[in-house]
Amino acid sequence: MTQLIDQNFLQEHNTKQESALTSDYNALAEKLDRSGFNIDSILAQAKQFAVAVPSWGVGTGGTRFARFPGKGEPRNIFEKLDDCSVIQQLSQATPTVSLHIPWDKPKDPNELRQYAEQYDLRFDAMNSNTFQDQIGQEESYKFGSLAHSSKAARDQAIAHNIEVVELGEKLGSKALTVWVGDGSNFPGQQHFKNSFTHYLESIKEIYNSLPDDWNMLLEHKIFEPAFYSTVIQDWGSSYLAAKETGERCLSLVDLGHHAPNVNIEMIVSRLAQFGKLGGFHFNDSKYGDDDLDSGSINPYQLFLIFNELTDIRSQDTTYNPFYMLDQSHNVTDPIESLMYSAAEVQRAFVKSLLVDREALTNHQNTNDAMMAQATLKQAYNLDIEPILQMARLQEGGAISPVACYRASQYRQTCDKNRPADPNKTGSGIV
Amino acid sequence: MTQLIDQNFLQEHNTKQESALTSDYNALAEKLDRSGFNIDSILAQAKQFAVAVPSWGVGTGGTRFARFPGKGEPRNIFEKLDDCSVIQQLSQATPTVSLHIPWDKPKDPNELRQYAEQYDLRFDAMNSNTFQDQIGQEESYKFGSLAHSSKAARDQAIAHNIEVVELGEKLGSKALTVWVGDGSNFPGQQHFKNSFTHYLESIKEIYNSLPDDWNMLLEHKIFEPAFYSTVIQDWGSSYLAAKETGERCLSLVDLGHHAPNVNIEMIVSRLAQFGKLGGFHFNDSKYGDDDLDSGSINPYQLFLIFNELTDIRSQDTTYNPFYMLDQSHNVTDPIESLMYSAAEVQRAFVKSLLVDREALTNHQNTNDAMMAQATLKQAYNLDIEPILQMARLQEGGAISPVACYRASQYRQTCDKNRPADPNKTGSGIV
Amino acid sequence: MTQLIDQNFLQEHNTKQESALTSDYNALAEKLDRSGFNIDSILAQAKQFAVAVPSWGVGTGGTRFARFPGKGEPRNIFEKLDDCSVIQQLSQATPTVSLHIPWDKPKDPNELRQYAEQYDLRFDAMNSNTFQDQIGQEESYKFGSLAHSSKAARDQAIAHNIEVVELGEKLGSKALTVWVGDGSNFPGQQHFKNSFTHYLESIKEIYNSLPDDWNMLLEHKIFEPAFYSTVIQDWGSSYLAAKETGERCLSLVDLGHHAPNVNIEMIVSRLAQFGKLGGFHFNDSKYGDDDLDSGSINPYQLFLIFNELTDIRSQDTTYNPFYMLDQSHNVTDPIESLMYSAAEVQRAFVKSLLVDREALTNHQNTNDAMMAQATLKQAYNLDIEPILQMARLQEGGAISPVACYRASQYRQTCDKNRPADPNKTGSGIV
Amino acid sequence: MTQLIDQNFLQEHNTKQESALTSDYNALAEKLDRSGFNIDSILAQAKQFAVAVPSWGVGTGGTRFARFPGKGEPRNIFEKLDDCSVIQQLSQATPTVSLHIPWDKPKDPNELRQYAEQYDLRFDAMNSNTFQDQIGQEESYKFGSLAHSSKAARDQAIAHNIEVVELGEKLGSKALTVWVGDGSNFPGQQHFKNSFTHYLESIKEIYNSLPDDWNMLLEHKIFEPAFYSTVIQDWGSSYLAAKETGERCLSLVDLGHHAPNVNIEMIVSRLAQFGKLGGFHFNDSKYGDDDLDSGSINPYQLFLIFNELTDIRSQDTTYNPFYMLDQSHNVTDPIESLMYSAAEVQRAFVKSLLVDREALTNHQNTNDAMMAQATLKQAYNLDIEPILQMARLQEGGAISPVACYRASQYRQTCDKNRPADPNKTGSGIV
Repeated sequence: MTQLIDQNFLQEHNTKQESALTSDYNALAEKLDRSGFNIDSILAQAKQFAVAVPSWGVGTGGTRFARFPGKGEPRNIFEKLDDCSVIQQLSQATPTVSLHIPWDKPKDPNELRQYAEQYDLRFDAMNSNTFQDQIGQEESYKFGSLAHSSKAARDQAIAHNIEVVELGEKLGSKALTVWVGDGSNFPGQQHFKNSFTHYLESIKEIYNSLPDDWNMLLEHKIFEPAFYSTVIQDWGSSYLAAKETGERCLSLVDLGHHAPNVNIEMIVSRLAQFGKLGGFHFNDSKYGDDDLDSGSINPYQLFLIFNELTDIRSQDTTYNPFYMLDQSHNVTDPIESLMYSAAEVQRAFVKSLLVDREALTNHQNTNDAMMAQATLKQAYNLDIEPILQMARLQEGGAISPVACYRASQYRQTCDKNRPADPNKTGSGIV
Repeated sequence: MTQLIDQNFLQEHNTKQESALTSDYNALAEKLDRSGFNIDSILAQAKQFAVAVPSWGVGTGGTRFARFPGKGEPRNIFEKLDDCSVIQQLSQATPTVSLHIPWDKPKDPNELRQYAEQYDLRFDAMNSNTFQDQIGQEESYKFGSLAHSSKAARDQAIAHNIEVVELGEKLGSKALTVWVGDGSNFPGQQHFKNSFTHYLESIKEIYNSLPDDWNMLLEHKIFEPAFYSTVIQDWGSSYLAAKETGERCLSLVDLGHHAPNVNIEMIVSRLAQFGKLGGFHFNDSKYGDDDLDSGSINPYQLFLIFNELTDIRSQDTTYNPFYMLDQSHNVTDPIESLMYSAAEVQRAFVKSLLVDREALTNHQNTNDAMMAQATLKQAYNLDIEPILQMARLQEGGAISPVACYRASQYRQTCDKNRPADPNKTGSGIV
Repeated sequence: MTQLIDQNFLQEHNTKQESALTSDYNALAEKLDRSGFNIDSILAQAKQFAVAVPSWGVGTGGTRFARFPGKGEPRNIFEKLDDCSVIQQLSQATPTVSLHIPWDKPKDPNELRQYAEQYDLRFDAMNSNTFQDQIGQEESYKFGSLAHSSKAARDQAIAHNIEVVELGEKLGSKALTVWVGDGSNFPGQQHFKNSFTHYLESIKEIYNSLPDDWNMLLEHKIFEPAFYSTVIQDWGSSYLAAKETGERCLSLVDLGHHAPNVNIEMIVSRLAQFGKLGGFHFNDSKYGDDDLDSGSINPYQLFLIFNELTDIRSQDTTYNPFYMLDQSHNVTDPIESLMYSAAEVQRAFVKSLLVDREALTNHQNTNDAMMAQATLKQAYNLDIEPILQMARLQEGGAISPVACYRASQYRQTCDKNRPADPNKTGSGIV
Repeated sequence: MTQLIDQNFLQEHNTKQESALTSDYNALAEKLDRSGFNIDSILAQAKQFAVAVPSWGVGTGGTRFARFPGKGEPRNIFEKLDDCSVIQQLSQATPTVSLHIPWDKPKDPNELRQYAEQYDLRFDAMNSNTFQDQIGQEESYKFGSLAHSSKAARDQAIAHNIEVVELGEKLGSKALTVWVGDGSNFPGQQHFKNSFTHYLESIKEIYNSLPDDWNMLLEHKIFEPAFYSTVIQDWGSSYLAAKETGERCLSLVDLGHHAPNVNIEMIVSRLAQFGKLGGFHFNDSKYGDDDLDSGSINPYQLFLIFNELTDIRSQDTTYNPFYMLDQSHNVTDPIESLMYSAAEVQRAFVKSLLVDREALTNHQNTNDAMMAQATLKQAYNLDIEPILQMARLQEGGAISPVACYRASQYRQTCDKNRPADPNKTGSGIV
């Protein structure tokens, strides 16, 4: 297996921190033991945790106002995979990559698959794109794609999705994520029912082309890029669309795509209860779809979401939704943000394993609100960093991924090897 | 028919304004004619418009901080009906009353029915109450009712609902509206799935007791009185509950029960498309469930909702959802607010009739966003007050209901005849 | 004066609608007269209403996801002025243009001024830009500009603002609008106090370079492009900055830059009361800074804002804040949107003149909430379209600007004369 | 000193947990030592932390819909103080009580002071009440109090506040907190400027009666009980009022009184920068002014607020704002909630002491967003529960306050000794 960070360097870096880690890990083990939790069992689950990295996430993100590129940015899908391999090598929590077509469309899918395999990277859900026009494209998506009033535009968007599925098959992916920008900016611009009907027809047609072992994931969003209405605005519309379409059509929850104040962990529960929770796009937000780093604004919410997921899995051990980090890294090194974010999601997951679920159930059944909430907080307030560090160490990753990455000078090397296009400015499009 | 405002007085009051009305009405007729609308046809529909008044709405409302009673407040359901009859007499848009049990529970339903009939008032949807404890009640609703973790509490709540239906049957009502305060104030307090499952079981049991010609209306709400989660928090949960329960179980939309920024007119369209839009509680709000007077904050939104309803009816002329004003009149005379609000809802309805729907469809199909929105605005910007006034005049109501009501001195008479309980303060419960 | 729409064509177009207009105008005159308003006096004020057009507004806007260019888009500031002149010719409500530097930076300011003068266009407030990096720029604004932690970056941003002022002087402008993207995406990224202190120092330095008859307008915004904190996030910070800086430093209110649910008309009142209300960027929004067309989502709010402004002017007739349309036209022809929006703002203004202010004051003083709100609604519910049409007609504009514009084939001519750059795609930067 | 929980019982309860605590404390000491923090110094500061308990907080709260009383609720201010003493005895973080007049108005202030002194309780800020009418009161507050349009009503409200100050002086309080319900439910109901002017005049008059060593704390709130506008709606208005009034007039921040999404920690910084941050009402919320238990919904936000406060104190060691828990305990035993919440606030405080402030400053100055946020998270992710437990143990409190309280059977004893009024139901006032 190819590894872009020198393994000796990595081990040396870890060695300096091992004694502190051992000490902290043992103290935590003792503490957990007192509460009836075996740390090794938790560690084993922590090691198995995985969240996909989006190929586009390794480039610097921007806003409609501007993009400020970082140094040594990847210029193509191969360089993106290089960066993803570093994230996985150090964090040991991101073994898969989610591609975005046409941005990452390979000339030769086989070549791409082999390139990924040298890093032991696999491909997660495929993402289609009908929210932008591509040069030479027949129909414009200015007024919609899968829900467009014109059949020609819808057909073009359907064909694109089917093409993405075919490509994904060659790459070993098992799911298609469909997010569309369809919607309207003015009251009256679109007929709500007709638009949704068109959307339903389109996704059914895509679904019919899906391989038997694939899932289709529908992503809803309350606003942006459409600012008055979106065709699939919330989990209610997403559920209805998934329900109408078929068994393997599921809803995907992006944490930043909801109205203010909405209880997202409850949506998680509802979709799961009705068999339609297919996956997550993790990120955090304070205002809208801010695409900030996971857990950076409201880590307790992230924990509450995993509390639901762990509860669901306690009933159905085979349940396994798609997880992806979907963030826009505007002011950080994307590799650092993705490693740090993967660990934050993993942290929420591990803490959720430490909830005394039997006690919680008792408190819920007796309406002991105080102790029910305290049961969650007891797990949340734990410092489980030693488990995350030990999981990485034992899997061959870095105890401290960001520090190790910085010490490795990987970015500086990229900066030399990946000269920027001098004609590309970072200007937005306001 | 008994009429509490002297009919001669009312006619005199109208007479002073008739010539101005005639002038305005004729000018509007000419203007509408130019756009292809016949004013008499619009007038006929305006006359048929009706929205129910809630019995509790004729008392002064309050907040958790305080209630400041008005003068001459009704002290029982009979006095409430008196006030409702005045609202209907002057506004001619509120022929029905919606009761709230146990607040309005009559000793003798027949007596109540006859009392209403003298005013030509009928009974709209019945409202059950399991969000408060009543003296002598076995089980408390502190931790829920239809979704309570205890079967005894659920059974008590179910029995109450069935009792309300039985009472409603005697009164000529045809629907039961179910709103519950069930929810939680802490993460972990309730198990989302179990709570919703209990809720579903309970409403199914109520539904099974429903007469064949009755509807059951489920009202969702994002928060309050529960402040972390509510068991039926949005239209998605409401839809699922209605769908699981049965054909005559429908969703009811209260305009103030949504997350900030949510597109309510789109929810209207979705519920209608999937056969589950059962009715409305009209009010307006700026922040939360403010229960302000309909159209007082965002009249364009009210118009957009009626634009959907008129569009639905243009496809299905038999469609006829339940309409009720659900407002809390904290600083106005409730009778004035209800008359004014009924007219505001009627105004939105009438304007929606004046949308050039063929042109709108064309603009939507060709994605002419500018003209599509202008088509709505063209109707909205019309001053259709003359139609509302003429409808009232021709039906025997008042051209200017509030002015006429004030001149009638009805409230002053009530103030004399309905002495307030000196031990009752208006203190809230913070 | 040069006029790009043939004046004969325009008159012919108007002629067809004049008899209907006369009829509607006379009916309205009679109606207003009954309420004590003289329509000619209102008409005179309507004619004087003016709102600036932003130079960048005549190009198609976009989001971070995509931009879908329209046909015949202006390719430089001269073509932008051509489009602005058409907007003014037909709407007669937009005699000034607001420039954005460096986007509109002219080689020769004199040439630009003369070019504008042929159309009788003047220059409104100048807009600086330190939210994007320009090619060849020494310091990057990735981490801020006027509030940057580095003095070199701040100095560069200050120098740019001063340069914009100097340019503006040559063009006859009288104000500088300062909006910055400064802020942070992570808790901890910036020290709130230090950042604001830097911001204050920077704007003071710019202020000190301001000509004596100029104003400086500070624009606040709650989020975007920064998603955790912005350095001048609300009117409170804006007020403090303006207060600290000097008498001619004022706050500018953009309608889309506030937290959800905030009462903007109250902010208008507060800033005016404390002498700091300098101007407006008009647009509408449903979710965030959506930059939708003015009045397209909540026209009553726009009216309530003008109700405040008219009230302020009733106390201080010299009060004259800066008005600009600041919208992003993503799905419409920008010329159409700007003409329509100017009329919507004008409509709100005219309706605010028709509020019976003496009655309102009486109702407020006696806490007659019902009649106070009804007094506002009485004005708002009027159809004052005939006044807007008559104002345009008498000033030489079009009774129906959008219809006339479409008939003129102006855009089609542009499409021929302004070939698009084939290398420019509309892709966003997600 | 009187102690209602038997001290022997308490010690026994603690003894069982001491060995686990010692083990955890030592492990944490070692871990902190590695990061350069001395745990004893942190412990010393934790012991000094104090937050006031509101007298009304020990009763069960309610909503406008209902109140569900708990068992053994205090029936007067003396019983309330009993409960407060238990909270302080076990939590050792709440040495003061904040009174609410007239709810807690004593016949004999001296008697009340002595009653408190036996428990070693002191009195924090006094709270006036002009948001409810009291029986026998001349003027009604239905339409406002300090900002009422009528001078008589304003004068009555001013006199009440002055009376509260005089009472507070006798009790040893040093501050008056002023929260008013003044505002409006309809556009037009109140004249914004006139209302605010009246408010300013009123608070100036109260301020002039203030003893020299007292502070006046102004509490803003975006909505409720007024639902269209409030007279002091946000920190901007609060700042202006405090600024206009005088040096010892300061702003008080209640965490639940802001618009959705607002960055509260930034408001904390702004008010402090301009010398006007006077105190806090701690609670948590998901939707509006939910008054949930502190830290129960978004504990990271609470930490970020203390991060600001600790930063401010690192510059000004004398800075000492007023802290109070302001929560509505609708579904928990209020004593339990207040003990748990005091510890949650204390937890946020202690974690803020563990931020490596020098490193943070460096990261901020170099715009290292990743490491800046990681510096905060490093402190936040620590499990500092052992410090809280040790602080309580050493101060004579309980290692586990809630468990100890439950074991003590205090509530059961109250239930016997405080029979409920059988005529009092928990019905709301909707």
